[in-house]
Amino acid sequence: MPVPQHTFDPPFNIVRASHAVLDVVDLDASRAFYETTIGLHVEDADANTVYLRGSEEHQHHSLVLHKATTAACARLGFRVGSDSDLDRAASFFAAHGIVHGFVERPFQGRTLHATDPFGFRIELVAQMDKRPHLLRRFDLYKGCHPQRLDHFNVFAPEVQDTINFYARLGFRLTEYAEEDGENGRIAAAWMHRKGNVHDFAITNGAGPRLHHFAYWVPNPMNILHLCDVMASSGYLANMERGPGRHGISNAFFLYVRDPDGHRLELYSSDYQTMDADHEPLRWSLRDPRRQTLWGAPAPRSWFEQGSVFPEQEVRPALFSADVRIAD
Amino acid sequence: MPVPQHTFDPPFNIVRASHAVLDVVDLDASRAFYETTIGLHVEDADANTVYLRGSEEHQHHSLVLHKATTAACARLGFRVGSDSDLDRAASFFAAHGIVHGFVERPFQGRTLHATDPFGFRIELVAQMDKRPHLLRRFDLYKGCHPQRLDHFNVFAPEVQDTINFYARLGFRLTEYAEEDGENGRIAAAWMHRKGNVHDFAITNGAGPRLHHFAYWVPNPMNILHLCDVMASSGYLANMERGPGRHGISNAFFLYVRDPDGHRLELYSSDYQTMDADHEPLRWSLRDPRRQTLWGAPAPRSWFEQGSVFPEQEVRPALFSADVRIAD
Amino acid sequence: MPVPQHTFDPPFNIVRASHAVLDVVDLDASRAFYETTIGLHVEDADANTVYLRGSEEHQHHSLVLHKATTAACARLGFRVGSDSDLDRAASFFAAHGIVHGFVERPFQGRTLHATDPFGFRIELVAQMDKRPHLLRRFDLYKGCHPQRLDHFNVFAPEVQDTINFYARLGFRLTEYAEEDGENGRIAAAWMHRKGNVHDFAITNGAGPRLHHFAYWVPNPMNILHLCDVMASSGYLANMERGPGRHGISNAFFLYVRDPDGHRLELYSSDYQTMDADHEPLRWSLRDPRRQTLWGAPAPRSWFEQGSVFPEQEVRPALFSADVRIAD
Amino acid sequence: MPVPQHTFDPPFNIVRASHAVLDVVDLDASRAFYETTIGLHVEDADANTVYLRGSEEHQHHSLVLHKATTAACARLGFRVGSDSDLDRAASFFAAHGIVHGFVERPFQGRTLHATDPFGFRIELVAQMDKRPHLLRRFDLYKGCHPQRLDHFNVFAPEVQDTINFYARLGFRLTEYAEEDGENGRIAAAWMHRKGNVHDFAITNGAGPRLHHFAYWVPNPMNILHLCDVMASSGYLANMERGPGRHGISNAFFLYVRDPDGHRLELYSSDYQTMDADHEPLRWSLRDPRRQTLWGAPAPRSWFEQGSVFPEQEVRPALFSADVRIAD
Repeated sequence: MPVPQHTFDPPFNIVRASHAVLDVVDLDASRAFYETTIGLHVEDADANTVYLRGSEEHQHHSLVLHKATTAACARLGFRVGSDSDLDRAASFFAAHGIVHGFVERPFQGRTLHATDPFGFRIELVAQMDKRPHLLRRFDLYKGCHPQRLDHFNVFAPEVQDTINFYARLGFRLTEYAEEDGENGRIAAAWMHRKGNVHDFAITNGAGPRLHHFAYWVPNPMNILHLCDVMASSGYLANMERGPGRHGISNAFFLYVRDPDGHRLELYSSDYQTMDADHEPLRWSLRDPRRQTLWGAPAPRSWFEQGSVFPEQEVRPALFSADVRIAD
Repeated sequence: MPVPQHTFDPPFNIVRASHAVLDVVDLDASRAFYETTIGLHVEDADANTVYLRGSEEHQHHSLVLHKATTAACARLGFRVGSDSDLDRAASFFAAHGIVHGFVERPFQGRTLHATDPFGFRIELVAQMDKRPHLLRRFDLYKGCHPQRLDHFNVFAPEVQDTINFYARLGFRLTEYAEEDGENGRIAAAWMHRKGNVHDFAITNGAGPRLHHFAYWVPNPMNILHLCDVMASSGYLANMERGPGRHGISNAFFLYVRDPDGHRLELYSSDYQTMDADHEPLRWSLRDPRRQTLWGAPAPRSWFEQGSVFPEQEVRPALFSADVRIAD
Repeated sequence: MPVPQHTFDPPFNIVRASHAVLDVVDLDASRAFYETTIGLHVEDADANTVYLRGSEEHQHHSLVLHKATTAACARLGFRVGSDSDLDRAASFFAAHGIVHGFVERPFQGRTLHATDPFGFRIELVAQMDKRPHLLRRFDLYKGCHPQRLDHFNVFAPEVQDTINFYARLGFRLTEYAEEDGENGRIAAAWMHRKGNVHDFAITNGAGPRLHHFAYWVPNPMNILHLCDVMASSGYLANMERGPGRHGISNAFFLYVRDPDGHRLELYSSDYQTMDADHEPLRWSLRDPRRQTLWGAPAPRSWFEQGSVFPEQEVRPALFSADVRIAD
Repeated sequence: MPVPQHTFDPPFNIVRASHAVLDVVDLDASRAFYETTIGLHVEDADANTVYLRGSEEHQHHSLVLHKATTAACARLGFRVGSDSDLDRAASFFAAHGIVHGFVERPFQGRTLHATDPFGFRIELVAQMDKRPHLLRRFDLYKGCHPQRLDHFNVFAPEVQDTINFYARLGFRLTEYAEEDGENGRIAAAWMHRKGNVHDFAITNGAGPRLHHFAYWVPNPMNILHLCDVMASSGYLANMERGPGRHGISNAFFLYVRDPDGHRLELYSSDYQTMDADHEPLRWSLRDPRRQTLWGAPAPRSWFEQGSVFPEQEVRPALFSADVRIAD
């Protein structure tokens, strides 16, 4: 199957993955998990919402926890280049029959909501309230020292169409997993806007669902320490997979589940991909190093569970290729 | 079951675990594994034997690889305090009907061989040829930077008797795993002479067999790097378990198998145990954190496989308590 | 003094710092230094030239060592977005009276040489021969595991004009050091194209000269190990400054001198700067944390010495503000 | 000068360096420093005293802070093997005219105070209240994760006599620095009881004074993080030397000063020395790698300043060899 070619002239300029908005059923429990154990910085909070960010982030928040009756991934947030990109995006969505609308959100500039043709709920912002970064406030570092939100990874039933849609929005392919043979189908794709391995990864599977969102941490020792801390503070069952090394993206990773089961990846290492002639790396679905360079298998939950999006019905995957591919 | 009390007045003074002697079927393959991948320093070699040591070791070797037709653990070597300890040991062995005898070994002083009542073949030395340590030869560091041989861990069918025997030789208990209840049997024991967690660990299981020998490495990053190196140089199948954290001994560990299947642990961290009133730590067999603080299970091979000793028939375990305890 | 505003619509698209070309007097000594001690991968070599790259780099080389009678920095190489950017660059240079010309270089596509108005010799390429990256070839990792060339830092006598020139080429300011007071002059600027702290830093000082080029390494342990290796393999005198933490860029750094005295920075950590509204961080020249968060002073050589460019006369700095600012 | 030979048959059995007792003028400031920034665990505290320990220590405390009007090192505490060793020690002191006496101290068993012939105030204990170690309480880890008190280092004017005295008590020499030439004097000695590099180091200099006490930390990353934390929380001026690598002991080190100026070393790495034939390593006073493998010089304060002992007059060094040797 031909590898999707991204456009160099997208209809509007998405800069990067920016923030996740999660519905959580026990706000205190979620805040304790992300603030004390993971180590994100709480920038603001009220009775229904907690706003957090990583140490290098200048923006007000990269994670929003909303109190809700049902756990879900409310929105995947992306940063666009400028305010006019928001208008161009609205025009593009209108021209393509995509449900969208401007909303107001605290601490954010104009915010454009949209539900893509596959049911992924996104929001676009050009501006967010600024805060001084906390990189040099080492006295505040906690948990695994999360530095910035890096990417989202979703389960998509119509994986090829979803990839094609985001390629049209300018997302570039860096790595992909494919069935062998002439008619081999792409089963997962890692796509970026910001110049590293990914802002958005799309995996064959029942969806639309969020597989995980990921924070970048400075080094593997921070991740090992998080394992120790989680094991000794009542979060043993929340450690789902890792630590280990992915073949894909070369990341040192740990996957943990928050109190609602939302999956968070802590990961370190990466590489640059901004050259115009950067070529995507193909993985055969049969190459086990893709998922885990060191050989340890991932648990079944990791392949099957994910966060639903509110009001979006989950459809089964279109094909039954081994779905054990999402990294 | 009462915890064995070690004697403070042993019949002879064993100082520490000193060296392992392994029979290997492909000497070149074994040398390549231990020298290039693990990173031990080859001090001497001839057509049939390779002598290796870690970077801090002043003694000529802590690992001897002997070419043989069958893989086996030939000897577990211990250092005694002085030459007269060798004579005291010989007297003790004679008095207790233990097969023993002095032999000559290259690069070693007088060497006393003995086969303990349970079939474990040991050798005692008071002196070994000295070499300057290599700690400051960072330019020679390779692999995971192994610094010193630390301990042995064996499968013993008569686990309580074996523990009692070594307690009588002055080995002190630091941690042990036990069945719950009044008549709970001890299923594993970690015992030391040198003042850290262990020189010799004894685990319930078919034996006499060696479960593993272990080298201490400076920090977890060295172990993570070894994982990466093994995964990318054809040793993926040799990575058996880890990396992870043991509850027991608090060690950060990786277990790998050499080309003959001999099991090597690379581990980091430890703690001091030389105080006279140091009390052993009891683990219930039901506490899963004992083996793996982070929750990932060990593979079946890790519980079942080990290296035989030459000419020693393997007997089944005396009781069938969950044997999944050896760390 | 007003902070220079970069243009969002540059005359041609520089993507990032790409490669350094150094004149060295003893090619064997330089190769040994960069290949064995630093750990760069030699991709090609002939009697007069050695080509090296870091583990994540797909391009044929990021460092070129040329045998020469005098040590110098021959060229600072930048990657542009496409072949047409080279033509646009040539037009821009022609229109502004900048000496330039297309040349042929092995393993590179069309190569445009130019000497900027201040005497910095640069070369632009849109394409370079590709090689598979070596990220997963952990068995080849050596030295400090350098992963990619990251940035250049130069001494410029006309520091404000030089900053302005590169801002016009689209380089964005991320951090800068400034004299206090209304008429305080900018004494150093860190500017980027690729979305992290810098591709090109410009420091007040006698020039044009190269202060250093920098490779990104995965974590501080790699840098500590390099210190140990250099100290134990005859390079003690080549360790000029560090290890330490910069306030600027938050980098964990080590500065070393190669056999010709060219200065190489190994550094780890960084942060993202690609948001359109990212604001530069101002440092007062009086804030010592700018240079060294931990307080240890840099040696005089670090402030005063640098690599000349061939045929470019070195001019003194225009003003005598404390030049001790280049990081 | 002949290297002192320790006795294998000491008059009483000192097991290891156990605890330091410091007089501090601002108890709250000292507690904040050691608890929050360094990361020791406060086990008990009252209005005049704070008791702290490292994560692996089973004993109630390894550091005692006493409120006092003048800063001083009140006592250097050593653990002996058994209660009868205390009586043997008292007899030995009596026979040699050494001022001594039994005292009661909270949380300690019988405590024997003594002032050695050179003015060093020590205290010996065979027992201390026990607490479960905190190794697996990773959720409590703070600062640099100090694990155990490791050693003391003192300035002694009569350096050779002091070394001889402690050799007679069974302390074994592991490394020493000596003037070159036939009559070269020993200027510093590292001596141990517990089987690693040192429990007690003795350095030529005005004394009796404490140069530093040291805690062992798991790895260099913990020390780098402490540097970052101290720099960002108002303790920049308290960072006196390092991070760096000693030639002596191979330790990765950082020296910091507490609010009273007492010097604390955080260090990682070490090696084993318990073999009966372990030979001391000689350093020439002219070998700069002894102090700092990486070349960075120590500040003058580090060579000259130390903590006095109450009521002990400080005498000048007996000879003026370069005293810049204490590591």
